[in-house]
Amino acid sequence: MTLRSTLPQPEFNVLRAAHAEFYVRDLGRAREFYVDLLGFVETEHDDEHLYLRCLEEREHHSLVLRKGAQSGASHIAFRVASPDDLERLALLAKQQKLPQRWITGAERGQDCALRLQDPSGLPLEFYAEMTQVPRMLQAYHLHKSVQVMRLDHFNCQVPDVATAATWYRDALGFRTTEYTVKETPLGEELWASWLTRKHTVHDLALMNGLGPRLHHVGFWLPDALAVLRACDVLAAAGYHDHIERGPGRHGLSNALFVYVRDPDGNRIELYANDYLTADLDAEPIRWTLEDPRRQTFWGNFAPTSWFEEALLVETVQGDGFVPPRAPLLRDRPDHVT
Amino acid sequence: MTLRSTLPQPEFNVLRAAHAEFYVRDLGRAREFYVDLLGFVETEHDDEHLYLRCLEEREHHSLVLRKGAQSGASHIAFRVASPDDLERLALLAKQQKLPQRWITGAERGQDCALRLQDPSGLPLEFYAEMTQVPRMLQAYHLHKSVQVMRLDHFNCQVPDVATAATWYRDALGFRTTEYTVKETPLGEELWASWLTRKHTVHDLALMNGLGPRLHHVGFWLPDALAVLRACDVLAAAGYHDHIERGPGRHGLSNALFVYVRDPDGNRIELYANDYLTADLDAEPIRWTLEDPRRQTFWGNFAPTSWFEEALLVETVQGDGFVPPRAPLLRDRPDHVT
Amino acid sequence: MTLRSTLPQPEFNVLRAAHAEFYVRDLGRAREFYVDLLGFVETEHDDEHLYLRCLEEREHHSLVLRKGAQSGASHIAFRVASPDDLERLALLAKQQKLPQRWITGAERGQDCALRLQDPSGLPLEFYAEMTQVPRMLQAYHLHKSVQVMRLDHFNCQVPDVATAATWYRDALGFRTTEYTVKETPLGEELWASWLTRKHTVHDLALMNGLGPRLHHVGFWLPDALAVLRACDVLAAAGYHDHIERGPGRHGLSNALFVYVRDPDGNRIELYANDYLTADLDAEPIRWTLEDPRRQTFWGNFAPTSWFEEALLVETVQGDGFVPPRAPLLRDRPDHVT
Amino acid sequence: MTLRSTLPQPEFNVLRAAHAEFYVRDLGRAREFYVDLLGFVETEHDDEHLYLRCLEEREHHSLVLRKGAQSGASHIAFRVASPDDLERLALLAKQQKLPQRWITGAERGQDCALRLQDPSGLPLEFYAEMTQVPRMLQAYHLHKSVQVMRLDHFNCQVPDVATAATWYRDALGFRTTEYTVKETPLGEELWASWLTRKHTVHDLALMNGLGPRLHHVGFWLPDALAVLRACDVLAAAGYHDHIERGPGRHGLSNALFVYVRDPDGNRIELYANDYLTADLDAEPIRWTLEDPRRQTFWGNFAPTSWFEEALLVETVQGDGFVPPRAPLLRDRPDHVT
Repeated sequence: MTLRSTLPQPEFNVLRAAHAEFYVRDLGRAREFYVDLLGFVETEHDDEHLYLRCLEEREHHSLVLRKGAQSGASHIAFRVASPDDLERLALLAKQQKLPQRWITGAERGQDCALRLQDPSGLPLEFYAEMTQVPRMLQAYHLHKSVQVMRLDHFNCQVPDVATAATWYRDALGFRTTEYTVKETPLGEELWASWLTRKHTVHDLALMNGLGPRLHHVGFWLPDALAVLRACDVLAAAGYHDHIERGPGRHGLSNALFVYVRDPDGNRIELYANDYLTADLDAEPIRWTLEDPRRQTFWGNFAPTSWFEEALLVETVQGDGFVPPRAPLLRDRPDHVT
Repeated sequence: MTLRSTLPQPEFNVLRAAHAEFYVRDLGRAREFYVDLLGFVETEHDDEHLYLRCLEEREHHSLVLRKGAQSGASHIAFRVASPDDLERLALLAKQQKLPQRWITGAERGQDCALRLQDPSGLPLEFYAEMTQVPRMLQAYHLHKSVQVMRLDHFNCQVPDVATAATWYRDALGFRTTEYTVKETPLGEELWASWLTRKHTVHDLALMNGLGPRLHHVGFWLPDALAVLRACDVLAAAGYHDHIERGPGRHGLSNALFVYVRDPDGNRIELYANDYLTADLDAEPIRWTLEDPRRQTFWGNFAPTSWFEEALLVETVQGDGFVPPRAPLLRDRPDHVT
Repeated sequence: MTLRSTLPQPEFNVLRAAHAEFYVRDLGRAREFYVDLLGFVETEHDDEHLYLRCLEEREHHSLVLRKGAQSGASHIAFRVASPDDLERLALLAKQQKLPQRWITGAERGQDCALRLQDPSGLPLEFYAEMTQVPRMLQAYHLHKSVQVMRLDHFNCQVPDVATAATWYRDALGFRTTEYTVKETPLGEELWASWLTRKHTVHDLALMNGLGPRLHHVGFWLPDALAVLRACDVLAAAGYHDHIERGPGRHGLSNALFVYVRDPDGNRIELYANDYLTADLDAEPIRWTLEDPRRQTFWGNFAPTSWFEEALLVETVQGDGFVPPRAPLLRDRPDHVT
Repeated sequence: MTLRSTLPQPEFNVLRAAHAEFYVRDLGRAREFYVDLLGFVETEHDDEHLYLRCLEEREHHSLVLRKGAQSGASHIAFRVASPDDLERLALLAKQQKLPQRWITGAERGQDCALRLQDPSGLPLEFYAEMTQVPRMLQAYHLHKSVQVMRLDHFNCQVPDVATAATWYRDALGFRTTEYTVKETPLGEELWASWLTRKHTVHDLALMNGLGPRLHHVGFWLPDALAVLRACDVLAAAGYHDHIERGPGRHGLSNALFVYVRDPDGNRIELYANDYLTADLDAEPIRWTLEDPRRQTFWGNFAPTSWFEEALLVETVQGDGFVPPRAPLLRDRPDHVT
């Protein structure tokens, strides 16, 4: 019989990972990739932005494509339960001397939001309210053959996972569902941490690597066949060399995944088959970095690019990308050269 | 050890069930149903016809929708291996005094063809050559979410199955893969016969019923999920009351099926999961009419409309529909009222 | 822009629907049905009980089959976050004069628990701690062909849905995700309410009907194909007449479902394809009782037994079943006779 | 309008690829792999053999595992329509001076058979009759989670594909469905040929390479999810490093495949999603060796082992393995090192 203590109430009610903003050079080409091929729904656009959402989502957007000179991530956004949470987060940022900025009207469908740079340098946006739009879940006659249902998580590379993960747990109330350690002669080091607020495996994954960088944004599909259809559709349209890794099964999280790069090189994961995490006190699942089934349960190795390439992230002031720093630990398993 | 004798060579090389022609009142509404929703590929059209094909097919059409005053079937067509087969079939029809007619240029993509009325009155077309068109199988980016791969079979109601099936076996070289008998105190009567030339379960099913009538045309989908997507797509577009029966699993043939009626009431079956029949001498599988798992392996009953309604078929002269005659046996199992 | 106010904190932290206990007459026959055919995992058994769990679950049991003279439900259980929640729930029951009882050691793998009769008479159990057991999610080589992943929800019939739902919302902090109204000349009446604590569509559904009765326990499967496999497996083993309704797609909740009755008549739902509900303040989705796509999106009707038959529930004192009372409204849509 | 001439009748009626015999060192370990994990059905065994079949098959065996000192292929077998075909094949072998041998009772479930060495040295068996056994297709309650439905084809490496393929076409009546050419400054060379008798993409694939060797035996699964389940099951049981290539989609044949090595290193392909080839005169589909989507439509490369490793084949006299000879052309695309 495991003993469990009462969970502390988090100070802030972060609901979930909510949206990301990528830079792309050509909005028309990006629309073809995301909307025409992968079946994202276009809510709205202007000369500088494409606002997309997924089929079961009811908010204005979960992915913003913004015209820019190169690929990269402007910010990743979490939804909070109330405007009060935003106020408390601004106070926290002030206390911890984290760069922050209130924005109003910068994104269509969203009124005010708070942006702050987390201790690793990741550009976070928090917002409480967004315009509601029709859910396309049961408008099956309008679905493309790939059915991207919802944004699920962000995966980021940071130089010091242990420090970064502690902040999300202690300051923001995230809980760990799975994690990876690197075993060394002196003990073990935290190499990656899967953190969540909603009841799936993660809202945010932190991996040891050159960072702060956004490794990928994960989107959930209803079943494994939809993941395979994504591969077929992209390959048929000539994007076979944009299928970077997979399809495969992750040991960690159990996801049936494929990683694809958009025409600008921004990386997304399309996946199915993770599991529910409604027991807030469940024992986190531990993996060792060198376990071949951790990354891919079926034994396949990830390509080198998967470890080396990731998106630079913008400063909260929006005046350029944050220079990434070298990680504390080696950025990949020893069996990957 | 089963003993098998050498198979007799059929006199005619019928390759497979190839296409059907339905009458519809509104071609635009039919296009919306077949092309926009179910993902059939439109090869060509004129004021009176819509020529459709399925995703893995390489011939000009497998379904012709023809403008008419009411629903109904103009003809069902089988492809033969060579023009010589057509000549031999014309001779057979003459010997057996079956109505026949050569047609030339009546269908786009097809040069000459022979039409004849089979002994039950079914309007058959035979042809040897058709214009080849690009296969869409791997143009995945152009697929709709329902993927109809190929026409598989015709299912017809005839008043006397035993006599009709004998003609297809003896005169045309079809073989029986599965069949249904009605058990009576005096013995058993053949109630339905599944007949094939190609290596699937059937090209032609003959069922005891008011006939000659075309009950449905069966189209093959790649997996059971595609059958479910067809239901979702039709329901989302407001056609939920056109889903007549299923989805379910047939005991006979093992097909995972759904039966839908087009806007004019013409019936098609969309199915997956039958099996290969490459052993030409395999023992036919026997079912009894009252076995509840024969029609639907999961026990569900078919609705009354499924037994009572079917398409009138046109005479080979094209001067009207063949008046159907009452069947020798009851047209449905005793457990269906 | 929708305005949202800060959500009130619930007084009790109910985590999720957790397990149910059914009475069965023959434990061996029940094991064959649940374990050998449907692939539930047997954690433990004694002469009177079979303790089962699903493949992604980590607690000792989510379904208890208990030897009894007839089918019926002993109780449905919710997990809470801490023992303190149990104390507060006992106080609530006392204040509201609801029958209650502490139990200790009554179920293997569980220490102490609180049982109370809700205002409609449903026998609820609350517990905070249960023995952890190995998760079978990635022990794929031990899975049967049907993969039942986790218990998801309870569906109950109660005579007065509006009153019952209010109690779960106000006293226990449940939120409504979808609901059904019956439209009358005088306005509309709440006919059914889908209520949840965890981030899926429901932990508890309340339907207008003769009650209190447990209509079914819902189990989640990873995809629609697993639901179809359940039908195939049950039919192959001779249980085709235990497949009561479906497979079909619910409009309400979007679930791809099948309802089956165990050898004693206890009803379970096996389903896939609902959606995530992490936005705690999302607008509940409204359905009208007579919308044909509400119950089955594809238009099929549910059989009469589905409306009429449900499990009697035991009193919290365990001295017999609660006599059900007639519902306020008609117990089925007008189009169902 | 494509013109087609009458097809010549083949002299022999080869029905289909029927079974293979692999050598394994440990029959118990082989049973665990094929029966317990992959769900092959064990028809019978003795001290030296394990006779397996697939779920939709009705003959005694499609895979024989035979105890031996090392992995390798004893023979590959084709079923013919009648005993007369065997006599005519023996005459052909005599005329062409190909090693041949009649065997009687060497395999359980099979009476007499003819073995002959084809011009490349591949050990072929032909037989006309085999004991019929119950089909497990609808015994769904006895299926494991991976459902291997039927043996589909053999894939062999030979030093001279053009010569080898000509023999199968001209002498045995096979037809080409797809093929690969290597483009050179002097023209193009046939690098691989997909040949069939039954109505699927192939019964026999011939690839340019060190040979004669049996590269793999292909088994058909009902859908892509079953292929993924095979990966999950093998990995869960510790065989993740036996998943050699895939899952992926072949451009050539459209198969959704995975290649696995049994505990002795014998290679099988588990696949779904090829297409029907009932039009005997369809234009073969042409691929160039360097097209990245030919091997894997999604762009992934095959590992080196896939090109280099294959099974030695036994002489028809059974006195050892045939020494392989170097191929005429390079054994892999230029982009594979």
